[in-house]
Amino acid sequence: MDEQLWAIVPAGGAGTRLWPLSRAGAPKFLHDLAGSGRTLLQGTYDRLEPLVGDRLLVVTGVAHQDAVRGQLDALPADQVIAEPSPRDSMAAIGLAAAIIERRDPDAVIGSFAADHVIADPEAFRACVTEAAQVARTGALVTIGIEPDFASTGFGYIKLGDRLSDFASAHGVAAFVEKPDAATATAYVASGDYRWNAGMFVARASVVLDLLARELPDLARDLRAIAADPEKFDERLAELWPGLAKIAIDHAIAEPAAAAGKVAVVPGSFGWEDIGDFEALSSLLDGAEGIKVLGDAGRVVSRDSSGLVVAGTDRTVAVLGLDDVVVVDTGDALLVTTTAHAQEVKAIVEALKAAGRTDLV
Amino acid sequence: MDEQLWAIVPAGGAGTRLWPLSRAGAPKFLHDLAGSGRTLLQGTYDRLEPLVGDRLLVVTGVAHQDAVRGQLDALPADQVIAEPSPRDSMAAIGLAAAIIERRDPDAVIGSFAADHVIADPEAFRACVTEAAQVARTGALVTIGIEPDFASTGFGYIKLGDRLSDFASAHGVAAFVEKPDAATATAYVASGDYRWNAGMFVARASVVLDLLARELPDLARDLRAIAADPEKFDERLAELWPGLAKIAIDHAIAEPAAAAGKVAVVPGSFGWEDIGDFEALSSLLDGAEGIKVLGDAGRVVSRDSSGLVVAGTDRTVAVLGLDDVVVVDTGDALLVTTTAHAQEVKAIVEALKAAGRTDLV
Repeated sequence: MDEQLWAIVPAGGAGTRLWPLSRAGAPKFLHDLAGSGRTLLQGTYDRLEPLVGDRLLVVTGVAHQDAVRGQLDALPADQVIAEPSPRDSMAAIGLAAAIIERRDPDAVIGSFAADHVIADPEAFRACVTEAAQVARTGALVTIGIEPDFASTGFGYIKLGDRLSDFASAHGVAAFVEKPDAATATAYVASGDYRWNAGMFVARASVVLDLLARELPDLARDLRAIAADPEKFDERLAELWPGLAKIAIDHAIAEPAAAAGKVAVVPGSFGWEDIGDFEALSSLLDGAEGIKVLGDAGRVVSRDSSGLVVAGTDRTVAVLGLDDVVVVDTGDALLVTTTAHAQEVKAIVEALKAAGRTDLV
Repeated sequence: MDEQLWAIVPAGGAGTRLWPLSRAGAPKFLHDLAGSGRTLLQGTYDRLEPLVGDRLLVVTGVAHQDAVRGQLDALPADQVIAEPSPRDSMAAIGLAAAIIERRDPDAVIGSFAADHVIADPEAFRACVTEAAQVARTGALVTIGIEPDFASTGFGYIKLGDRLSDFASAHGVAAFVEKPDAATATAYVASGDYRWNAGMFVARASVVLDLLARELPDLARDLRAIAADPEKFDERLAELWPGLAKIAIDHAIAEPAAAAGKVAVVPGSFGWEDIGDFEALSSLLDGAEGIKVLGDAGRVVSRDSSGLVVAGTDRTVAVLGLDDVVVVDTGDALLVTTTAHAQEVKAIVEALKAAGRTDLV
């Protein structure tokens, strides 16, 4: 175990395309979407604990801090940081980096979202371990996921030259935005591209120094909030509302890549970002027919395929529908198909427009 | 108003193809399936009351007698007859006929199921009024519904000669069973056939005398149960279990038709037998899109058509499904399509086989 390696777990995002399972009040990282008996947040903790022990900070919204602490009862309560308001990923990760930097100026941090699923945690940890070694050289290191297919739903990382001192690391030639289908196919065929899963590993000081060059006010304010633990809450309340809202990719990763300061460790460990019900369905075990998240004993089906989320104690019967998605919760029911999984957010927008904020 | 005309309303049948809306414990006649604000049973009462006042008997199962009395609070409680066990339509209608015959030996009875929907009650009553006039001649009179289409779901009545003393009545040449599609098309094209809606009008004594010829034990026992109001419950408990189980069509209507003793009054009054969710959907108002039985304010839909039965206070969202059927009740949810409406009973059978009698 690398005693200077810390994990940062940003736990944000409502997961609108997973409504009504995921809500603003109960976002997807709080749910056991993989049917594993552990929520996505708990799964993230379980996966990181062998690497970092309790050197792990979660950054989440004020609304979710109690739920997060409740799910991670082994974690010291002050390692769950509550953002007073959403300020995008740079502020969230940067604040955690500043807190860790104050505790250990040589610490290496790795940032891993709370709502991903990884089939092979051993391979994941081996990858992060190599990334931490590369990070010691002063690089900003990202993990590049081996593409399973020509996804148009993720950004890509173009590999640069191999870094000869490490087992598999490369430089990063460029970060590229979500491509169209033809471009994605060409990327995958070339073998030179990896999916960008938004995982970063670097010295805490490297992250903040890169930020100080691009957005000096933001870096200064984040370090100021973290500087004195006694005054943390006061400084947070004072400075947080004025912080720039920007994603870490745009704030530091893309400029650093352009300057040749970013490395990538390629990885292949069954990574899944469960963005919608189609992804959730493909993640769950089950042959042909209806897959069930929840108590399968409550679901009766005939001549049907798809997904039932059995979120209440009611019996759900499905007859004669293929690729159907039925999500049964206490106050809302969704019936759609996997082909319409991306459009679920339109239902959420319609409910918001109708004033039904209680449901979203 | 014809002071000797009585109505009999058999209220039985679980409506299995309307599960989970209709249950053994809460069959379809107890529900407001037409979205009119009145249940099918109440609609039947409302339709008959201008013809018969309170000369109306309901025959239902013991399990439903309290619900029936609760829904028909204007009806004297002793005019809801509880069958100790199901004995098919001849015993139910015959017992009511025997009770009415004892009160008024010259009474004319009309039997009308509790779970039909009729769009034009005035036209219906005009038809029944003519049928009652024909019944005074000693005939067994049925109502023959003008076919809307070549249904294979109903039996048909073949018209015989016109009866010259009446506005529209004919003799009945034959009752015919549910036809195949080609036969149904030929029936409708010929103009000589009407749907058999199971409505009969006759003198009570004619019904029982016809029965006495075909099934003398059954006629005798029914008259014995009704003979002394003081001993009604005792005689019912004693004789009912031994009664023959037979439908009124087979018991008396078909033999009487073969003997030339049945007449038919053709009718066209928007009759519907809501046998399944496809029929229910076609009955409800609404243009393209999702039709709602219940509170339409609880249903959100996009790019969808079909039927939502909003039976709870939950919000139901439907996205990207055509001809879908969603039936949301407190303990069970059905998701299917109108094309599978006939197969809903298979779900009920599966639940029974799994021991979930609480749900059916």
